Amino acid sequence: MTDIIREATPLDVSGMLGLMHELAEYEKLTHLFEATEEALAEALFGQHPAAEAIVAERAGKIVGYALYFQNFSTFLGRRGLYLEDLYVQPALRGSGLGTALLRRVAALAVARKCGRFEWSVLDWNQSAIDFYTKMGATVMPDWRIVRVTDDALTKLAAAA
Amino acid sequence: MTDIIREATPLDVSGMLGLMHELAEYEKLTHLFEATEEALAEALFGQHPAAEAIVAERAGKIVGYALYFQNFSTFLGRRGLYLEDLYVQPALRGSGLGTALLRRVAALAVARKCGRFEWSVLDWNQSAIDFYTKMGATVMPDWRIVRVTDDALTKLAAAA
Repeated sequence: MTDIIREATPLDVSGMLGLMHELAEYEKLTHLFEATEEALAEALFGQHPAAEAIVAERAGKIVGYALYFQNFSTFLGRRGLYLEDLYVQPALRGSGLGTALLRRVAALAVARKCGRFEWSVLDWNQSAIDFYTKMGATVMPDWRIVRVTDDALTKLAAAA
Repeated sequence: MTDIIREATPLDVSGMLGLMHELAEYEKLTHLFEATEEALAEALFGQHPAAEAIVAERAGKIVGYALYFQNFSTFLGRRGLYLEDLYVQPALRGSGLGTALLRRVAALAVARKCGRFEWSVLDWNQSAIDFYTKMGATVMPDWRIVRVTDDALTKLAAAA
């Protein structure tokens, strides 16, 4: 059975969306899930893409994916890559597919002369933290993510 | 004395770089500081910009800035804005400039139909946390930022 890591194509959108919903379930965040095939297709393959993705294919089926986009560090004065999602179906964890996906995005970061490759992890997801640490990543202890959404965003913007 | 919040121009690069270094000092991160005028000018005003910025001007001098770029949430299926830096010189804190900068970026996020406006804060920076919370933002308790840089990134990429 051959595993393939390759760039996502428009034909993968439906399969990826299914995996995204599985990831939201795993992260206990399905209440935030609003993505649609149309929105994902536009973001990845529209006229001005917001993100890129690679997929892991096993026996002709999409079983994992990595979705990432460019960010920028003012302190480094350099672009970086931000990994929004990395997902491999639970039954296939430990098979090397997650490692292969992560390494492939890291290779893109190096090829694009990025200063950093970053992502986020939930503090209770110890298996992910262990995996990332083993891969040479550092979990930053002191940064917190701040977010404004929905009504709070509208209200903040209204006074501008 | 009139305060102006406006889009950054190439003439602001030198002033912004000085403020970025002040921010790195405040965050105790000068060991990470490598940015140059050339890199910042290219990132903001080059052929394929990596980020955008607005500045706060008081009495003809740049005293603060906000630098941001687009990100993407797979769960929302929507673009967002990520605020990489928000800085106002210490002597001018409490003057409303930080609020004005934050509101202006929030307004852009709404105008662009973004699902989220996000940034990061150091967990010991209580004055910033208090300010953001007052502005309606939520400090997420459970996410941690993961980072691969330098030799670790090269090594991770090499095995791809």
